Amino acid sequence: MAQLQDKAQELKLALAESDEFKSLQSLHSQIEEDEIAKKMLDNFRQLQLELQQKQMQGVQISEEEAQQAQQQFELVQQHDLISKLMEAEQQLSVIIGDINKIITEPLEEIYGSPEQ
Amino acid sequence: MAQLQDKAQELKLALAESDEFKSLQSLHSQIEEDEIAKKMLDNFRQLQLELQQKQMQGVQISEEEAQQAQQQFELVQQHDLISKLMEAEQQLSVIIGDINKIITEPLEEIYGSPEQ
Ligand SMILES: [Ca+2]
Ligand SMILES: [Ca+2]
Repeated sequence: MAQLQDKAQELKLALAESDEFKSLQSLHSQIEEDEIAKKMLDNFRQLQLELQQKQMQGVQISEEEAQQAQQQFELVQQHDLISKLMEAEQQLSVIIGDINKIITEPLEEIYGSPEQ
Repeated sequence: MAQLQDKAQELKLALAESDEFKSLQSLHSQIEEDEIAKKMLDNFRQLQLELQQKQMQGVQISEEEAQQAQQQFELVQQHDLISKLMEAEQQLSVIIGDINKIITEPLEEIYGSPEQ
């Protein structure tokens, strides 16, 4: 496990030093310092969380709620910092997905890939 | 991304070379070669999958189904190879959880830990 932990630490540092992570970090800081952007994003995240929780509880989301979420999404997308943050989050999420795919390859050799 | 991929590959190799992974791999091979153990495990996995899918679709699981799953679980636990495999899977799952926790620490610095 020591070797595994060392390698995980090295990977963590590579992630923390990547352009993509640094860009996300910088955008997040800029938004934290921008009262309006922060409020817009917090509201949007709160609404997303509420809808997610409803879905997880099997509660049907009304057409009105779906419309409201879509409108809020379009609104936050108009904000330069927020849309850049969301893009950066999307990039990080792809990177972490790719990393997880690599790391779990040995397990795929045992169990087969999810598609199989 | 090149550095990240290198580090992910190194971590993958460390995982593939760990005692815990090798033990899982060996137990899996032994079960594949043991017709009865394989059939028991396949049946159990199939039942688990069906119940999981029901839960995800929000379908209530009957008391009978829950009992059946519990009985099958106790049955497969009696089988030495299968119970060892499940233990090895549990260990691997803890290891991968620990790895993911390390790797995503930089993101926690931005977003806070899930508990916060
Ligand atoms: Ca780069
Ligand atoms: Ca060891």
